[in-house]
Amino acid sequence: NLDVSDRDAQTSHRTVTVPGFINIATFAANSSNVIKGPAELKEVTRLSLESGFTYCQLMARSLAGPIISDPTSLKSAFSASQDSAYTNFSFTVAGTANNVDTIAQTANEVSALFLPFRELKNKVSTVAALLKNWPIEKQVIAEAKTSDLASVMLLASLQNRSIHITGVSNKEDLSLIMTVKDKDSKVTCDVNIHSLFVSQDDYPEALFLPTKEDQDFFWQNLDAIDAFSIGALPTLLAQITGNKVDVGLGIKDALPLLLSAVEEGKLTIDDIVERLHENPARIFNIPEQLDAAVEIDLDHSFKHTKRWSPYTKGGLNGGIERVLINNETVVLSGDLVSSAPTGKLITTAKVIPGIPATPSSANET
Amino acid sequence: NLDVSDRDAQTSHRTVTVPGFINIATFAANSSNVIKGPAELKEVTRLSLESGFTYCQLMARSLAGPIISDPTSLKSAFSASQDSAYTNFSFTVAGTANNVDTIAQTANEVSALFLPFRELKNKVSTVAALLKNWPIEKQVIAEAKTSDLASVMLLASLQNRSIHITGVSNKEDLSLIMTVKDKDSKVTCDVNIHSLFVSQDDYPEALFLPTKEDQDFFWQNLDAIDAFSIGALPTLLAQITGNKVDVGLGIKDALPLLLSAVEEGKLTIDDIVERLHENPARIFNIPEQLDAAVEIDLDHSFKHTKRWSPYTKGGLNGGIERVLINNETVVLSGDLVSSAPTGKLITTAKVIPGIPATPSSANET
Ligand SMILES: [Zn+2]
Ligand SMILES: [Zn+2]
Ligand SMILES: [Zn+2]
Ligand SMILES: [Zn+2]
Ligand SMILES: [Zn+2]
Ligand SMILES: [Zn+2]
Ligand SMILES: [Zn+2]
Ligand SMILES: [Zn+2]
Repeated sequence: NLDVSDRDAQTSHRTVTVPGFINIATFAANSSNVIKGPAELKEVTRLSLESGFTYCQLMARSLAGPIISDPTSLKSAFSASQDSAYTNFSFTVAGTANNVDTIAQTANEVSALFLPFRELKNKVSTVAALLKNWPIEKQVIAEAKTSDLASVMLLASLQNRSIHITGVSNKEDLSLIMTVKDKDSKVTCDVNIHSLFVSQDDYPEALFLPTKEDQDFFWQNLDAIDAFSIGALPTLLAQITGNKVDVGLGIKDALPLLLSAVEEGKLTIDDIVERLHENPARIFNIPEQLDAAVEIDLDHSFKHTKRWSPYTKGGLNGGIERVLINNETVVLSGDLVSSAPTGKLITTAKVIPGIPATPSSANET
Repeated sequence: NLDVSDRDAQTSHRTVTVPGFINIATFAANSSNVIKGPAELKEVTRLSLESGFTYCQLMARSLAGPIISDPTSLKSAFSASQDSAYTNFSFTVAGTANNVDTIAQTANEVSALFLPFRELKNKVSTVAALLKNWPIEKQVIAEAKTSDLASVMLLASLQNRSIHITGVSNKEDLSLIMTVKDKDSKVTCDVNIHSLFVSQDDYPEALFLPTKEDQDFFWQNLDAIDAFSIGALPTLLAQITGNKVDVGLGIKDALPLLLSAVEEGKLTIDDIVERLHENPARIFNIPEQLDAAVEIDLDHSFKHTKRWSPYTKGGLNGGIERVLINNETVVLSGDLVSSAPTGKLITTAKVIPGIPATPSSANET
């Protein structure tokens, strides 16, 4: 149990120290672009580290479609990420109708197969073939909703394999997941943090957001939500509302939003650590970063950056006081103090059929 | 194997004798109406018997919605069916959001739980609750499509129970069913006979019909189709095209359509008997009617009745020469010759948990 400290005598701020958070669905649209990729990854991982994340699992798509889907694009991503990350990180690979036969070639070098929503919509036989070809020990992340959600869980269940549903966005979907979880512990899910705080009431044009009713259902069934993610939601929302689309939208405001819920008694610090650290590490087989520690300040006033945030109601408090890696302060008062991007690519060891993959030991951030 | 006889010397017609067919999805919109029900059931079962069906399993809905959904409506249906059926028959009961808690009360008196498409669309938790409450040994018929298809198969698979999908209407759905059948033999399905012969090319306004591409896929994957049904499709099609809606649409032309496919070499008589007799009997636990025999005449020219048929291209041949019950001719040359509706209601014996239900012995038609 994580206990919030007594108030600091000097500042009267409450603090709590937690393990490094895992940004399980990090959106970086240019990951595989050797020109634009490095600066973008620096920015996204810097924002992540400043927000308490010491590990970023990168989504394999941009808003336009898959960006990492074969050994060539993965190699470009590796190249672009060289000395460009402030956190440890791993890539995922997108399954599509075009890479069914080659998808397994990348399995040892990514942390999961990523099944993008739009490209695989109603493509049940493609999804079936992708799952068939993907090593059973490696995780699968599905963006599936409604029809595709039921079918991907059905296919995973028939294979008796793990599947993680990312960005659950409505009540019916969470309800179906809950029904499956009752019988099958291999299914896990996350919701995008912003979808716990903004709804279609706030942005009627954003039908991908939950309704207020969906959102209430999420809060009533937090136990069924294994992880919290950021994902592409803040970026997509900025785009369709005509706000400025910056790299790394939604990262800085994620934890203050969750802390505001702690303040309201809707969530505990433990709930957050389970969903941003313990469960993500277990679900994605991410090695513990025992040398990382994050000090949260619950009363630190949240400094809005120039970045747009989907949550515009203000009044958020709480943030990162300090991030320590190997006893060295790399973030102080929410700002990076270490200038070198020393985050390392984490790849799992060779998958041996029948034997769970052993992650290689993590290098320090 | 069913061999087609040599041509009859006198008429030069080829004949074959088959067991009594089972009309697994018999549409009779007034089944539970004690005023309109008896005449309608007489008509529907007469048409069925004249078409080679010696058993009718009644759908629990009209075009407007569920008609049999509780002990009261089932009792009305029993009453309306008294001395009004020319074939043996059984009822199904519709599951809805309103009868989750009482649905099991009717289990011993119907042949299956019927999950109507429209009423249960996107109601995953309702479907989950209905399946949970329905005895595991009793069959479930789902009209589910797309999203609801995957979720109902997922729920059935989690319960390790049988499920029959009726009226599969597109390629993607059959493909998903095929994927599931590969791993789980408890899933079965049927297609409506007319959807093998008419498509959206013929009726662009009828989006519930398969496209030509879907239809081709059905023909290429006949092995995956366990049964043929008639269902509500011909009636619905008549309604939306402004044709006259008569009782029993689609029954008389069903077999001639299938026989035309035999003529074209796309189907064998064996294929038909498997899908209109053997598999339906097994899937719905319907007792063998050993005293029934149906003589099909492949060359008998198909007499169009005044009823509208979805298939308007003409040129159909083949039909029922004779139906024999207990060595007595009840249908001759496609017309009823026995005037008494002596069909019996077939109910299964009391379901004992864990022990498969034993059907009571069928009475003669
Ligand atoms: Zn402070
Ligand atoms: Zn840990
Ligand atoms: Zn502070
Ligand atoms: Zn801000
Ligand atoms: Zn003849
Ligand atoms: Zn038989
Ligand atoms: Zn004849
Ligand atoms: Zn006709």
